[in-house]
Amino acid sequence: MSPATFGIAQLNPVIGDLVGNSDRILAAVQQLANRGVQLVLTPELSICGYPPRDLLMNQQFVRDMEKAIADLAHKLPHDVAVLVGTVSVNPNASQAGGKPLFNSAALLKRGKVQQIFHKRLLPTYDVFDEDRYFAVGNGSQVFTLDVKGGKSLRVGVTICEDIWNDEKFWGKRSYADDPVAELTQNHELDLLVNLSASPYAVGKQNLRELMLSHSAIMHNLPLIYANQVGANDDLIFDGRSMAFNRHGKIIARAKGFDEDLLVVNLEELVLNDSSLRYESNDAEIFAALVLGVRDYVRKCRFRQVVIGLSGGIDSALVAAIAAEAIGKENVLGVLMPSPYSSAHSITDAIALANNLGISTQTIPIQAMMEAFDASLANLFAGKASDVTEENLQSRIRGSLLMAISNKFGHLLLSTGNKSEVSVGYCTLYGDMNGGLAAIADVPKTRVFSICEWLNRTSSHLTIKQGIMEVIPVNIITKPPSAELKPDQLDRDSLPPYDILDDILHKLIDRHLSASEIITTGHDRAIVERVVRLVKIAEFKRRQAAPGLKITARAFGSGWRMPIASQVTP
Amino acid sequence: MSPATFGIAQLNPVIGDLVGNSDRILAAVQQLANRGVQLVLTPELSICGYPPRDLLMNQQFVRDMEKAIADLAHKLPHDVAVLVGTVSVNPNASQAGGKPLFNSAALLKRGKVQQIFHKRLLPTYDVFDEDRYFAVGNGSQVFTLDVKGGKSLRVGVTICEDIWNDEKFWGKRSYADDPVAELTQNHELDLLVNLSASPYAVGKQNLRELMLSHSAIMHNLPLIYANQVGANDDLIFDGRSMAFNRHGKIIARAKGFDEDLLVVNLEELVLNDSSLRYESNDAEIFAALVLGVRDYVRKCRFRQVVIGLSGGIDSALVAAIAAEAIGKENVLGVLMPSPYSSAHSITDAIALANNLGISTQTIPIQAMMEAFDASLANLFAGKASDVTEENLQSRIRGSLLMAISNKFGHLLLSTGNKSEVSVGYCTLYGDMNGGLAAIADVPKTRVFSICEWLNRTSSHLTIKQGIMEVIPVNIITKPPSAELKPDQLDRDSLPPYDILDDILHKLIDRHLSASEIITTGHDRAIVERVVRLVKIAEFKRRQAAPGLKITARAFGSGWRMPIASQVTP
Repeated sequence: MSPATFGIAQLNPVIGDLVGNSDRILAAVQQLANRGVQLVLTPELSICGYPPRDLLMNQQFVRDMEKAIADLAHKLPHDVAVLVGTVSVNPNASQAGGKPLFNSAALLKRGKVQQIFHKRLLPTYDVFDEDRYFAVGNGSQVFTLDVKGGKSLRVGVTICEDIWNDEKFWGKRSYADDPVAELTQNHELDLLVNLSASPYAVGKQNLRELMLSHSAIMHNLPLIYANQVGANDDLIFDGRSMAFNRHGKIIARAKGFDEDLLVVNLEELVLNDSSLRYESNDAEIFAALVLGVRDYVRKCRFRQVVIGLSGGIDSALVAAIAAEAIGKENVLGVLMPSPYSSAHSITDAIALANNLGISTQTIPIQAMMEAFDASLANLFAGKASDVTEENLQSRIRGSLLMAISNKFGHLLLSTGNKSEVSVGYCTLYGDMNGGLAAIADVPKTRVFSICEWLNRTSSHLTIKQGIMEVIPVNIITKPPSAELKPDQLDRDSLPPYDILDDILHKLIDRHLSASEIITTGHDRAIVERVVRLVKIAEFKRRQAAPGLKITARAFGSGWRMPIASQVTP
Repeated sequence: MSPATFGIAQLNPVIGDLVGNSDRILAAVQQLANRGVQLVLTPELSICGYPPRDLLMNQQFVRDMEKAIADLAHKLPHDVAVLVGTVSVNPNASQAGGKPLFNSAALLKRGKVQQIFHKRLLPTYDVFDEDRYFAVGNGSQVFTLDVKGGKSLRVGVTICEDIWNDEKFWGKRSYADDPVAELTQNHELDLLVNLSASPYAVGKQNLRELMLSHSAIMHNLPLIYANQVGANDDLIFDGRSMAFNRHGKIIARAKGFDEDLLVVNLEELVLNDSSLRYESNDAEIFAALVLGVRDYVRKCRFRQVVIGLSGGIDSALVAAIAAEAIGKENVLGVLMPSPYSSAHSITDAIALANNLGISTQTIPIQAMMEAFDASLANLFAGKASDVTEENLQSRIRGSLLMAISNKFGHLLLSTGNKSEVSVGYCTLYGDMNGGLAAIADVPKTRVFSICEWLNRTSSHLTIKQGIMEVIPVNIITKPPSAELKPDQLDRDSLPPYDILDDILHKLIDRHLSASEIITTGHDRAIVERVVRLVKIAEFKRRQAAPGLKITARAFGSGWRMPIASQVTP
């Protein structure tokens, strides 16, 4: 092995911002070049950001991308090789059939595109739609890198999914081909690289490390993996790019949830680890959600957010995430008490705001409730009070929050958790209002554990500066309630959250049927009720704000269910 | 050619309702068997309805489908062959790679599954996600049908997209393979059949007829095409199943937008046409929207709908569609005047309701506007009135409509048209509220032409019984206005609708860039403003109700755009 060093530019692109993303790559390569690297890896589709989705259907956008790549090649330091993720046109699409584009990596050096490599395995499941846009790649995946001392290295290039089909590791194949096996069988490689945009899910990093280490060992090859960082709508990319030596030992790991430039020397024996270690899944999820909120705010060109503070644990967690993400001075909490609000709903919300140092406004909603009730009195005469009136309270609050959003240009964050979104325990056009659903993929039991961790942690979170507890203990310990009618408690309508969340996990993440869930030990009546509630709440979720994905299966771009369909499980 | 006759069971399934769909198929086959047919075709995935989407990820659902097919085979008349659309398990998925299911057609006869055929071309574009679920089919696509007189026919089986890749017809290939060409090259076929679930778009039926006729001629084979009918969420399936003789002459055509059972004798020379002829695209689109509303209401288990009547043309058209779809007695119009409402907004809405025979309620919103204004007065002190107050009016109305929906169990239909949804000229959580957006894919210019057609037509629409005009003329002739502030007119904020709709068509349906649209003769400033508005309204559309698709490209399951992204075109 030669004394070559490599750079990973773990960047946070803005989708579609070809100029900005090019500038970001250029600046990163310049810094890495100054540190002596001979090859820089950027993430998958780094020129346009991942996922560009239907922007790819605009042919002008594709031409602009090709031009951006050419311009970037011209500006880059000429003596460094750079792999940039981009699309390229499939020249045979109309004659031979197939999609018009490849998902590619362009090798830029000496002012121009030297070679181009295409992704072969196209994920089309969960949040991924690559068969919608891309043809299966063909052609060479190998290039020769000249390094110091007149030597040269044979480098194999793969893109994201290409490296995720090792039959020995998974015990099965997801695709007929294994591009890594073919590359190593057909070429005497010195190095394998992978350009990725692999979204975060809790526990996934461990799997990546095991899998990539296995590949390095299997093929007796060093492996460098550059992952995208940053959040794009519902998807959070966690970065944590890595390098492994040919023995499968991890020798470099980039930061999680932040941009990073990493220099890799494959002969190093000590781990060059700039990633924070997370003390728990709670800590890691909190970091992910902070990035998710920060990037959505920033990339949608907002500066401030508004949040309805109910005094409950969900809005408390969202406020803490927002304060950490964009600064306490940019978070406005709004209290909107009704005659059904408890005294503690006010005191707890104020205590939370004080802990976080965010400002608040209080707008009682009784006057609007009365105006609606009076206006509907004739029409509703003789009808009992029911969920209608509860929803009206929620919709009055939602309208007030949107008025504040409109007047001051603040982004409204909605505060529903995954458990309530699953079973429809939320009001469409009410508490579901918002541009981003910050904790829509966080089960209620996880909301509790993250809040407990927040209070327990001694980490240097900005929101922990100078305070002992972030979330007032009463918010954590009191029984959850929507407070939409007197003495209402969640537990009167829903199973206990530990039971509910276990059923939901089996139903949603593991795709089990009601009868299969019952055999795992749950009560039949509860399971059937939950399955039914999940099904009939589909119309609400269809109109929900994008929700930050942190589990293997979220209600978002990867959840595609019919609404008008048979209800029974 | 033998004297065999064939049946097409053009059915309207409920997604996921395996028992109900089986019963529907059984009843249809029994009727067709009584009319002497020897083979019955049902549509693609007729056992579960198309598209089942992520229901297919539940393995129990797949097993239930296999059982439903076996049960159905047992119950069907034993001497008739029936092709039923279903999924089947890909036995090699984990060893050889690939998706776990095939999209299949099961040949049922004599009490059991005789053969099974797999779809080879899997559409993965626009609203289609078949690569997400299905493996590319393999195996035989031919069976032998014994017919009267001891003869037998060789029948080639294709499923939907399989027949849409004729390079000569399209001038290009969309897939490498042409299953029809391969079938006819490798087998001496007597008949080609196709099981389809082809969604409606205006103008598409003409294309289907041309293409299928071309295929029959090219391969010198009679061709029978069975299409699904009925609406499922945003997709309307128009039916209009057809048969062609070997000379490409159409000899049978089933109804549009309704279930139908058709007997086909390939030796007939006269067209057996049970489809209505539509006098115009306006007439056809109206029929499609009527089916779309009726099926969404029915399949979501509603009986009645509520609609906000503004006195404008959009809500007038939606009310007319709803009255035709589910009966005037099941439509409630709600007038919600504000101090900015014109006198004609009331009189026009009442005149419309009288024409349609629907009931109305009137709920002035001033009291609620005042309650909101008073509650926000402190916070908004010193701030000028702006879009905030306009949106509040819309959100008060949206909340009132949802209160009525909640209290009476009526489905709320939203009334936004495609032009305003495109540029965001609509209020999220306000006039966008509703379970179904009936005209969300209908451009404003088309809204006008449909309303003019409604008044002009002498067709036997239910809503035309006993009246000359459906839509009061003043609703059509007055300049459109949102009436959210004094003297507000759409034309003050937006380009004239004929210009706007042309720009939107080029941008959305034809994927042109701003500069390309400008070269077609539009003003640069207008185009750039429209493109920008479309882009920044993405966050609203993401939270919109499902909208009935009637054009080649709708904002719905086939529109997948990032929100947090670069804005300039």
